[in-house]
Amino acid sequence: MEALHVGLAGFGTVGTGVAKILLEEAAWLERRSGRQVRLKRIADLDLERDRGVRLDEVQTSARVEDILEDPEIRVMIELIGGIEPAKSFVLEAIAAGKHVVTANKALLASHGTELFQAAEAKGVQIGFEASVAGGIPIVRSLREGLAADQIHSIAGIINGTANYILSTMTEQGLEFPECLQQAQEKGYAEADPSLDIEGQDTAHKLAILIGLAYGVQVKPDAIFTEGIQRITGMDIRYARDLGYRIKLLALSKIQDGEFEARVHPTMISQSHLLASVGQAFNAVYAAGRSTGPVMFYGKGAGMMPTGSAVVSDLVSLARMMDQGKANDLPSLGFYGKFPQDARLRPMEELVSKYYMRFPVVDRPGVLSKISGILGEHGISIHSVIQKGRQEAGPVHIIMLTHEARERDVQHALEVIDLLEVALDKCLFIRIEDSVDPSHIEPA
Amino acid sequence: MEALHVGLAGFGTVGTGVAKILLEEAAWLERRSGRQVRLKRIADLDLERDRGVRLDEVQTSARVEDILEDPEIRVMIELIGGIEPAKSFVLEAIAAGKHVVTANKALLASHGTELFQAAEAKGVQIGFEASVAGGIPIVRSLREGLAADQIHSIAGIINGTANYILSTMTEQGLEFPECLQQAQEKGYAEADPSLDIEGQDTAHKLAILIGLAYGVQVKPDAIFTEGIQRITGMDIRYARDLGYRIKLLALSKIQDGEFEARVHPTMISQSHLLASVGQAFNAVYAAGRSTGPVMFYGKGAGMMPTGSAVVSDLVSLARMMDQGKANDLPSLGFYGKFPQDARLRPMEELVSKYYMRFPVVDRPGVLSKISGILGEHGISIHSVIQKGRQEAGPVHIIMLTHEARERDVQHALEVIDLLEVALDKCLFIRIEDSVDPSHIEPA
Repeated sequence: MEALHVGLAGFGTVGTGVAKILLEEAAWLERRSGRQVRLKRIADLDLERDRGVRLDEVQTSARVEDILEDPEIRVMIELIGGIEPAKSFVLEAIAAGKHVVTANKALLASHGTELFQAAEAKGVQIGFEASVAGGIPIVRSLREGLAADQIHSIAGIINGTANYILSTMTEQGLEFPECLQQAQEKGYAEADPSLDIEGQDTAHKLAILIGLAYGVQVKPDAIFTEGIQRITGMDIRYARDLGYRIKLLALSKIQDGEFEARVHPTMISQSHLLASVGQAFNAVYAAGRSTGPVMFYGKGAGMMPTGSAVVSDLVSLARMMDQGKANDLPSLGFYGKFPQDARLRPMEELVSKYYMRFPVVDRPGVLSKISGILGEHGISIHSVIQKGRQEAGPVHIIMLTHEARERDVQHALEVIDLLEVALDKCLFIRIEDSVDPSHIEPA
Repeated sequence: MEALHVGLAGFGTVGTGVAKILLEEAAWLERRSGRQVRLKRIADLDLERDRGVRLDEVQTSARVEDILEDPEIRVMIELIGGIEPAKSFVLEAIAAGKHVVTANKALLASHGTELFQAAEAKGVQIGFEASVAGGIPIVRSLREGLAADQIHSIAGIINGTANYILSTMTEQGLEFPECLQQAQEKGYAEADPSLDIEGQDTAHKLAILIGLAYGVQVKPDAIFTEGIQRITGMDIRYARDLGYRIKLLALSKIQDGEFEARVHPTMISQSHLLASVGQAFNAVYAAGRSTGPVMFYGKGAGMMPTGSAVVSDLVSLARMMDQGKANDLPSLGFYGKFPQDARLRPMEELVSKYYMRFPVVDRPGVLSKISGILGEHGISIHSVIQKGRQEAGPVHIIMLTHEARERDVQHALEVIDLLEVALDKCLFIRIEDSVDPSHIEPA
């Protein structure tokens, strides 16, 4: 049986994992693929560094063109990351009739439609199991396993860095900066962690999940995105006292043909299965009309989990290699007209419960003033916590609201933040309890 | 595009779900499949009962032969259940060149190799996503999503009836018979629940999971299987006090080429993600060499979740319908020689920790007698609980052991059960804490 020859562009962490698996698990992969999967070429600018992989039988060079121009190579693995030059290389590989396997969520979220259309026109596949939630096979599960069902909501913990930080704040009672530093020391956060902690990475992945679940296209910058930088240990503790956990969630719903998509710190019930997803782990919770709720849990990043997801796409391609037309399967698993941009419901129209923390001067009448303003904006208060004053510094008034409209909340907080007694802006966190957690066994 | 015509044999609960989805979600399915999926025929002995599905365009009859003999039908959906006549119909469908989609775990566990070989010889597919864990796409996840990885352990809650009973005992503090009755009233248990509570159904599904994960064949009756009937509310409470939950687990490991497979009530740490899987939900936890731990959670049974899994196989077949050779993919996702029966490590060689409850006469020296016998068999005790005597009846001595060998435990208990002070046989439960739960966020 003819071998499947592949070329690897980008020999970083995940690339090293891919090379290790291809070179060290060759017999296993042949049993899974029905043929050899042969790593023929690696292209990277840094070929000096020792990655602990024996490359005797691999041709290495600094030029991705060496992969693109090799007619024997049927698949280019793109692990360069970022938009350019990755995008150009992917388009060139497709033009050369090569399949592409990529973990590049930024590229797919921003230019997926263009790339998928190019691939379909050329009759090649783009494999991207590794682009969302690393080792969790969520792409295939949405495209194939749940293909008969109509998914109507998604809630995902899909950024390991943010989850590690929030999880460590919860478990160790530390503040955000210390936990970020810890994450960096352990290799869970990059030197510049902004894409992770500010939520954009999560929004990229959510855009891909939305494409797979609903067959629509959403631009990642159309997704409301808020990071976790402002969350304090105090909020974590209040959340716990109130029966909640704080997680950076990717949320999406479809209701009456309207789409909702947002990324922000979210309070979820402690008894929800997602609340148990600790450390750098990822999980995607989805609910379908027929299937009901499902959850997928695992490692969302790292050399070997993500490397294994990349190789799973190679196995699929190897299995299908002789099937002329088998490559017609559309990338997102939806046939027909290519999806146009879906209109997202504006964030101001969101209806949610809210946790609010007001750092204020300890003075009579403040509570009444704040609750008065909320009332004027039609926001009804569910409960209030005001603990005794600290030695120094502000007093914090905590409020949980009933369901309120985001627009009203924003307007009310603009007024409250300008009060003379307000020592800092209100910190508010949306509460998500629309997903019924009754089936989770209480601890 | 030519439609995919299917015939449904067996119009029970799941069959009704399949018919509902095919008839009511036709437009969605066409978008997912690239062609119409048309339910042409239904065969069932009872066609009088109103199932709330409009069958105007479906031809119904009492004869499965009407499906088998219809050349336009490309797929037979087998939802008859049991071994015969289901097996003969499946073989006839394959011989007639039809694909088969089935939820029949008993059939696949016992005769899977024969059926898979017949299908591969004929170039047709057997879809069985619905046979394990209902709405959870675990079959595809093992066969495709995790295909690049070597799974080395599986722990599954894959019987909703047993989990509902244990979960209800835990949450409501009730005894086994009341919870079984509750399960029957809610439709979670059948009138004859023995296959579920005695563990055979779990063993059937475990045999299928083992085939998918390791590419080996294990006969279900070679799997050590113990049910949940003897668990009492007292054991549930002690487990909780000790930081554990009791679950009916399907367990399998591969170590140094040796396979282990067993089904029994198991104590797992309260902080393990599987411990949170309540009610009738299912979950499969697996660990792979590269991927690390993954977990899949969802509804394991029911009309719509299982129906949706059946239809997902139809979607896959519809997508591949024009691909001549695409049907070469082996059923379990392993190429090469068809697996022979794997030798399972005998249960006596298991090394585990144990919970033991001894119902004894309240008399001086009993504790010393029991611990002496355990010691003589090389079983070392980790901790002992003996609470004050009840008004009447036996005293219960609870012991947790360090790691011990099953053979030694069996021998020691044979001796202890014969003691004059033993009022009933020792109830013991194996403890599973080899799966590292450190990544689960503590409650």
